[in-house]
Amino acid sequence: MRVVITGGTGFLGRKLGEALARRGQLTDATGRQRGIDEIVLFDRAAPQQPLTDRRMRIVTGDVAAPEDIAQLITSDTGSIFHLAAVVSGEAEQDFDLGLRVNLDGTRAILDACRRLPTPPRLVFTSSMAAYGGELPPVIDDHTPINPQTSYGNQKAACEFLVSDFSRKGFIDGRSLRLPTVVVRPGKPNKAASGFASSIIREPLMGRDYVCPVPPETRMWVLSPRRVIEALIHAHEIPAERWGMNRVLNPPGRTVSMSEALDAVRRLGGAAAAARVSFEPDPFIMNIVAGWPTAFDTPRAHALGFQADESIDAIVQAFIEDERPAALVC
Amino acid sequence: MRVVITGGTGFLGRKLGEALARRGQLTDATGRQRGIDEIVLFDRAAPQQPLTDRRMRIVTGDVAAPEDIAQLITSDTGSIFHLAAVVSGEAEQDFDLGLRVNLDGTRAILDACRRLPTPPRLVFTSSMAAYGGELPPVIDDHTPINPQTSYGNQKAACEFLVSDFSRKGFIDGRSLRLPTVVVRPGKPNKAASGFASSIIREPLMGRDYVCPVPPETRMWVLSPRRVIEALIHAHEIPAERWGMNRVLNPPGRTVSMSEALDAVRRLGGAAAAARVSFEPDPFIMNIVAGWPTAFDTPRAHALGFQADESIDAIVQAFIEDERPAALVC
Repeated sequence: MRVVITGGTGFLGRKLGEALARRGQLTDATGRQRGIDEIVLFDRAAPQQPLTDRRMRIVTGDVAAPEDIAQLITSDTGSIFHLAAVVSGEAEQDFDLGLRVNLDGTRAILDACRRLPTPPRLVFTSSMAAYGGELPPVIDDHTPINPQTSYGNQKAACEFLVSDFSRKGFIDGRSLRLPTVVVRPGKPNKAASGFASSIIREPLMGRDYVCPVPPETRMWVLSPRRVIEALIHAHEIPAERWGMNRVLNPPGRTVSMSEALDAVRRLGGAAAAARVSFEPDPFIMNIVAGWPTAFDTPRAHALGFQADESIDAIVQAFIEDERPAALVC
Repeated sequence: MRVVITGGTGFLGRKLGEALARRGQLTDATGRQRGIDEIVLFDRAAPQQPLTDRRMRIVTGDVAAPEDIAQLITSDTGSIFHLAAVVSGEAEQDFDLGLRVNLDGTRAILDACRRLPTPPRLVFTSSMAAYGGELPPVIDDHTPINPQTSYGNQKAACEFLVSDFSRKGFIDGRSLRLPTVVVRPGKPNKAASGFASSIIREPLMGRDYVCPVPPETRMWVLSPRRVIEALIHAHEIPAERWGMNRVLNPPGRTVSMSEALDAVRRLGGAAAAARVSFEPDPFIMNIVAGWPTAFDTPRAHALGFQADESIDAIVQAFIEDERPAALVC
């Protein structure tokens, strides 16, 4: 069967595509194991890096253009991982773009799924930015969402569409409110949460970094390895185990920026850690202030999801997976 | 200033229009009292009944057609009461129609508001159908929503849009998760909750009625008088009192169908009550089973919202407001 990954040429999309290629099969909405014939990475533009598996293929288009999505979600599509999004900082600055990609794009995907002969499984990446406002110290599985960013509101609205399309049997959907993904490789993107990756990545790559939030700022994070596992695990859990709620808070870790910097010092040395300085930016701080920093996630644990063991494990995974061997800090 | 009521020729829209005409003024988004020059009742079709005030005017159109809404929401529009909706039973049976009116319609209204020179106040009628699934015995202001109907999911998605458009300063919005409105006059509509009105209205109008849910079925209800008060009160509360949450559960009453029938007997006589029989309908019961039946609403009470005193007060209000004087049961 065909698997579609929207936002597929992004960092997570690519890693997910590679993991699915290694895995070779997925459970379809009827519960049968199906071989994966094709992994379509859908995105705005084709990347420069070569693909690593012959089953992987890049398709470019506009996620909010129904005609592009109708061509993408073909009748042999059994699984969709809908990762495409305009990130938090950009959605806050460009309201129209955020609405168009995050809301209209999801709607276009769902509408196309509905026309398939067999309902596909769909994994939707929502965000812990769905929480906000007057928050309890620890979010649990029963805390109401109340997003204070456009990104969070758009993700929240889509959660209800994914749930309702699932309830109606048009898809077999699952939404994960992802923690901040740390460590992202490459250049900083426009996510307001980018500093949580940069504070680890930049010094380990030998670059200076000015962190836009104070050292005591805490973030709820999950490593790329665990995120990919969580996306596939969310896909594989039988529909009946989701019960009457298709949205889940996966587990993560609470990490302060000073703890992240300590891990950089332990694993990368004092010289690396010394490359980081702090210069708070009100625009970033204002967005981040509305996000939750600690969760209790019993439902996810019961469903078999796993967090990283420690901040050191997160930093070590980055060093192993992403840092070019040539680079020594 | 101009006030727009979508779904304006419906039962509540009309009553709201009349109440606003009597009131003569509203507070605008800057906090100033403004005289109401025009009350536009926007709906799919013009009704047969005459208008009762010279400031009232009917405009027909499609709430999901941006061109119709652009003409409706003119630059002198200071307040919008967005009541237009495809009701629960109909949205469950006609998924496309529900999405189009309940989601796309709200989006069209919000997009039009955003183009106004001054952000208008907007009151959005969400629904207690936003709650569902594995519910606690009593819903409070901190219970997460988890709708189990398309109507509820569409309303929930729109709550987040109204909140985000408000946070961005494009509107000054307020969403009320209305209880079931009891007693609705006229013929039963396609709302799955219609029986809660019919069990009172039909026998008092001298007509037999077969109730599609068992007598012990409990509903969370509010009378039309109190709903109209709540809509205007929600409009008038200063923005700062809403804080970081633009969605509110107004107060209501929990009433079982047998209690409603007892009130009919007390106020309309035994002969009227004898006109009601019970014959459960699985389609209706299935929708209703997912709805909450009891709420604790301290936030609404603190903000000055009020429920009805008793089921007898609700039935008495119907007799006074709606039952033709000529009809004696």
